[in-house]
Amino acid sequence: MVWNTNLRWRLPVTCLLLQVALVVLFGVFVRYDSDADPHWLDTKEQENSTSDMENEFYYRYPSFQDVHVMIFVGFGFLMTFLQRYGYSSVGFNFLLAAFGIQWALLMQGWFHSYYQGYIHVGVENLINADFCVGSVCVAFGAVLGKVSPVQLLIMTLFQVTLFSVNEYILLSLLEVKDAGGSMTIHTFGAYFGLTVTWILYRPSLHQSKERQSAVYHSDLFAMIGTLFLWMYWPSFNSAVSNHGDAQHRAAINTYCSLAACVLTSVALSSALHKKGKLDMVHIQNATLAGGVAVGTAAEMMLMPYGSLIVGFICGIVSTLGFVYLTPFLEARLRIQDTCGIHNLHGMPGIIGAIVGAVTASCANADVYGVKGLALAFGFDGFKTNWNASMQGKFQAAGLFVSLAMALVGGIIVGIILKLPFWGQPADENCFEDAVYWEVSSRDLFPCTKGVASLLQRPCPHQPSWGLRDWKLRVGDRGCSSLLLHPEALCLLGA
Amino acid sequence: MVWNTNLRWRLPVTCLLLQVALVVLFGVFVRYDSDADPHWLDTKEQENSTSDMENEFYYRYPSFQDVHVMIFVGFGFLMTFLQRYGYSSVGFNFLLAAFGIQWALLMQGWFHSYYQGYIHVGVENLINADFCVGSVCVAFGAVLGKVSPVQLLIMTLFQVTLFSVNEYILLSLLEVKDAGGSMTIHTFGAYFGLTVTWILYRPSLHQSKERQSAVYHSDLFAMIGTLFLWMYWPSFNSAVSNHGDAQHRAAINTYCSLAACVLTSVALSSALHKKGKLDMVHIQNATLAGGVAVGTAAEMMLMPYGSLIVGFICGIVSTLGFVYLTPFLEARLRIQDTCGIHNLHGMPGIIGAIVGAVTASCANADVYGVKGLALAFGFDGFKTNWNASMQGKFQAAGLFVSLAMALVGGIIVGIILKLPFWGQPADENCFEDAVYWEVSSRDLFPCTKGVASLLQRPCPHQPSWGLRDWKLRVGDRGCSSLLLHPEALCLLGA
Amino acid sequence: MVWNTNLRWRLPVTCLLLQVALVVLFGVFVRYDSDADPHWLDTKEQENSTSDMENEFYYRYPSFQDVHVMIFVGFGFLMTFLQRYGYSSVGFNFLLAAFGIQWALLMQGWFHSYYQGYIHVGVENLINADFCVGSVCVAFGAVLGKVSPVQLLIMTLFQVTLFSVNEYILLSLLEVKDAGGSMTIHTFGAYFGLTVTWILYRPSLHQSKERQSAVYHSDLFAMIGTLFLWMYWPSFNSAVSNHGDAQHRAAINTYCSLAACVLTSVALSSALHKKGKLDMVHIQNATLAGGVAVGTAAEMMLMPYGSLIVGFICGIVSTLGFVYLTPFLEARLRIQDTCGIHNLHGMPGIIGAIVGAVTASCANADVYGVKGLALAFGFDGFKTNWNASMQGKFQAAGLFVSLAMALVGGIIVGIILKLPFWGQPADENCFEDAVYWEVSSRDLFPCTKGVASLLQRPCPHQPSWGLRDWKLRVGDRGCSSLLLHPEALCLLGA
Repeated sequence: MVWNTNLRWRLPVTCLLLQVALVVLFGVFVRYDSDADPHWLDTKEQENSTSDMENEFYYRYPSFQDVHVMIFVGFGFLMTFLQRYGYSSVGFNFLLAAFGIQWALLMQGWFHSYYQGYIHVGVENLINADFCVGSVCVAFGAVLGKVSPVQLLIMTLFQVTLFSVNEYILLSLLEVKDAGGSMTIHTFGAYFGLTVTWILYRPSLHQSKERQSAVYHSDLFAMIGTLFLWMYWPSFNSAVSNHGDAQHRAAINTYCSLAACVLTSVALSSALHKKGKLDMVHIQNATLAGGVAVGTAAEMMLMPYGSLIVGFICGIVSTLGFVYLTPFLEARLRIQDTCGIHNLHGMPGIIGAIVGAVTASCANADVYGVKGLALAFGFDGFKTNWNASMQGKFQAAGLFVSLAMALVGGIIVGIILKLPFWGQPADENCFEDAVYWEVSSRDLFPCTKGVASLLQRPCPHQPSWGLRDWKLRVGDRGCSSLLLHPEALCLLGA
Repeated sequence: MVWNTNLRWRLPVTCLLLQVALVVLFGVFVRYDSDADPHWLDTKEQENSTSDMENEFYYRYPSFQDVHVMIFVGFGFLMTFLQRYGYSSVGFNFLLAAFGIQWALLMQGWFHSYYQGYIHVGVENLINADFCVGSVCVAFGAVLGKVSPVQLLIMTLFQVTLFSVNEYILLSLLEVKDAGGSMTIHTFGAYFGLTVTWILYRPSLHQSKERQSAVYHSDLFAMIGTLFLWMYWPSFNSAVSNHGDAQHRAAINTYCSLAACVLTSVALSSALHKKGKLDMVHIQNATLAGGVAVGTAAEMMLMPYGSLIVGFICGIVSTLGFVYLTPFLEARLRIQDTCGIHNLHGMPGIIGAIVGAVTASCANADVYGVKGLALAFGFDGFKTNWNASMQGKFQAAGLFVSLAMALVGGIIVGIILKLPFWGQPADENCFEDAVYWEVSSRDLFPCTKGVASLLQRPCPHQPSWGLRDWKLRVGDRGCSSLLLHPEALCLLGA
Repeated sequence: MVWNTNLRWRLPVTCLLLQVALVVLFGVFVRYDSDADPHWLDTKEQENSTSDMENEFYYRYPSFQDVHVMIFVGFGFLMTFLQRYGYSSVGFNFLLAAFGIQWALLMQGWFHSYYQGYIHVGVENLINADFCVGSVCVAFGAVLGKVSPVQLLIMTLFQVTLFSVNEYILLSLLEVKDAGGSMTIHTFGAYFGLTVTWILYRPSLHQSKERQSAVYHSDLFAMIGTLFLWMYWPSFNSAVSNHGDAQHRAAINTYCSLAACVLTSVALSSALHKKGKLDMVHIQNATLAGGVAVGTAAEMMLMPYGSLIVGFICGIVSTLGFVYLTPFLEARLRIQDTCGIHNLHGMPGIIGAIVGAVTASCANADVYGVKGLALAFGFDGFKTNWNASMQGKFQAAGLFVSLAMALVGGIIVGIILKLPFWGQPADENCFEDAVYWEVSSRDLFPCTKGVASLLQRPCPHQPSWGLRDWKLRVGDRGCSSLLLHPEALCLLGA
């Protein structure tokens, strides 16, 4: 089957339609919340609130910026490890996130910030929109290299919608605590993405196997992503926690868990290689699993040693997953998981949900103080029959709801994305920037007559290639990379 | 004409003279402001100010650091897209900004923070100095690759001076609002830079055309710059706004505008390519136009949907500019704009000024509240005859003053920079790091006898080159890049 | 001597043992401090503390995140300048820092935050742990490329311990002020690292000389590290200063010093090159010396012009050090300092200590105010016989204690690291990622028969190499880099 990957009308029309719809919906629904609206000056005076510093902005904005960096630089560069997919990794992540945050402001706004006929947005909404998009970035990791930007926009549209519904069920109906999103962001995002890539299974993907690995510099670019995710994860898990001690504690716990996770990831990476060498894939990914797995419990009284134990376990589980589980999933279950999100977000997300449920079910007034307990689990005044074991059970229920939403949603969205007119690439053109990006003339040195004349000869070491195939393949990348190709050696030297 | 690009005395003398002058001027004029001076402990007690948290530092420092990253990493890496000009892009930007912030502390200090015989600096001065330098970084984009570091220091000296005068006229005389600097930073910087590059027109610049494009990894480095600019722009536009709701609102508006701008930039980039492919130049630049264009209005009651509309329009205008206007400017008006700053800062800056004027002229007590209106436009008490339409007219006047200052200043500075002794490169050596940076021996593999013997033969495909030219050109880059050059192919293989 | 660099058991066992020990020690000793513990809600009510904003978290967390970026991205990427050591620079720095911060939380906790049987950790402890690890990152710069990750973990274990003892002597016994760590972090770290590398002297290191230089893109990666260090250094020096004016002043002073340092580094770099060209090594490193050298005095009343003078001097001293002193140290004193830490941290650290001592000895109530002086030097109430000259003398004593600890500790740790079973690389394999990282099959294009047949011939320009050596050397890097190697030219073209 020949795919038409020319997006000249499909991509512009999709972008413009979505953006026009967003403008209209924002015009009808979105207003500033009271902390971003100057009217508070007239009304708050009676309430003896004298300090601008009490504005929510100053509690949340530094964390917001850190989360923002994680979504755009963290996820974007983490996926640049592929040798010929850097433009798309960073660029498509940029596109889907820019669309997703707008749509998330609306969807989450209708569920959580809608009153007096308007959605009222403030800095916490911006953080939550970034969180929601984080779940799309996770799913993007599973389908990386195999979908068109139009498909990504469609996926983002549906995934943000489903995320918001799931989040509403968990946070508002089940009253689950999930400040760092182990369930809502990571588990949901990972299993949604895995289901989509399972539906989009490509049996001939081995044809672009060569491009599915890294080159030296692409792995360094990916480390930029890894490190910004790792460093700012304490901000991620604490960004929407209660003011004061909860936010403080969430940062400490995440810091501890991530540190422990690095050591066990390195240990396993070395132990599982026959010569004891480290693998950049593990260092780039498994080291982050500790942040995922304290997402739910970070703001609770997990204790620093509890965080270390969680990080310890996740570094091991995640690295084992990369070595044994990912190949198994691809070979047996036909799940082609480009970035290994099952190891970084799937399993650690489930572990995080369980850790959260256990930690919540152990909560009591000795550990939290009387007021602290009420504040941490939000039952001050109106939830009189709250108890810890019930909270634990609701937490566990939240995990199952998230998994169910991810699987059912993923199947539906996967089937929609399988329709043949979204401009998806052929199996042999996956993981290749040149399909959707202008790369030839600007990027590479121009051909000279010398090269052209070389190309009149067939390639001696690839007799199966006709003269035309050979030209096309070299031409794809321009002639400078001809020199970097093993085939070129036979032409030039042998 | 042969240019002498040896900077051995010119650059050190310029740097040291400027820095000595700065030390002396700082010694005479610069002191800490009251929030950075321990004397407040003795004096403020009576005033019942009990909290350290009220220190301006905590309101502004996180935003300051974000702005700082935009100036040094954002602008620096944005310009690394050129294949052989990465050291200069990052390094010269570093140099001019480090000089510029010191000079701006003095210039802006004399205009805005000078009392009791001293300039009193605090964190807001640091932000404003970074802002001022931002305008120089914008202008640097127009002349990138065609000027020496000595010329850049001279340009910075004059541009910071002119910037400060212009800013004083706008903010203090015309009482214009321009928190994010659509007029003072972007419009002024862009048209100043364009005028300078127009004066410095190089008719034979096509001789270094080959180096004026990107290579694969250089485009990824540039995306680091793009993303840090994009992510931190909400901090840029809100950094010096009033405490509380204004700062909060400015961040929200910028966030919205930038998100919308990404979608329309992508849409236009694809629509304007014959195969629907995306162009990295647009993704790197046009996506940022939304931040420029809400610079003036971000802290006003622009409303989230207003921000989306601004971003929507700017993504389109900016991408169209890259495709149609930049080639036109170069071919017809002899304006060689290396980074396309007219599309990213020029037009969006003007749009931002207009949006600001319109938004200000619509201000009223219904929208802002009574106290909010007074605070937002600073007329509480002493400006009794203020009205919105007058504010709008002054805003518009500010745009024309900025344009006039940029054009007149740019002509004068351009003429100064045209003097032949600043070490500027010849037309065929533009966009080349090796002119000003030690690159050969450390950077590239050393030549072997094998290569040397090859160079005894003239280049068959460049008959116009004598043996000596050929050696020089190859020698410039060292022998490893010989292999990456198309010319090398003819020697080795053909 | 043939070294066994297979770490399959050594590295995993070391990591897992250390991490298990940390989990146990955290379980026994580490608890949240009162600002991260919900019990404060029950107890603080009586004390009329109404604002969450007074939580230490909001005073320190933004600075903490900046410091965190400096340690992981700043130091990690600064060291990627080596052409074939990027994975190890970023990856090993990641590993040692992740271990070091946990161990530092314990060591520093026992000395400074231990009461009621527990170490109480909050955000300030996280910052101090990062600081402590900063000193290990400094020392890593001296031994970069010549040690195994197991050696680095052992070094970190001992250096963090010694750092904490030294810090306790300085801050608690001598009551020295050193907020930005000129003495405790930079001087100690640099001379410790230099002593270790002196003990580990490798007489045949010239065999891997070729890989000890940079390539074009590796220098750009290193600039990411440089810039994040440079930009966030004001946060580093102000992170643990007193709230309010001290933190504010420390940021201003560091900003000024760093800006001046850039200009003099550029001046000297150009002046010391025979053609006036700039050297990336100086731009990457010497520009940062100004931050090191105001570490002690930044929070004092150094005045902005004082900071400029310090930066001015350090840019000169540091660049001179790179040009003249580093080669001298290697040739005469057998100190092989890979990153030139003596120029960036050693000499500037000593200068910083002296500047701090002088500034402290000039302190008086005119400059600081009565209360400000008491607060700045912590003698309010209990230190009745404090005077400035005494403070200055103790500051100077702190420098000598740090140097002594570094030298004695460095000798002991160096001897331990010299033991032959830590998996260190042979002299000819230094500065090479492939020793400890899986790079071949994923990273490089696979060999074809064409290349294999070329390798049947001995290398004509390296007659000393046997056929087997030649294959091994090419095979090390895979065949694509064959084309980038000068040796390849002789095979292909000559």
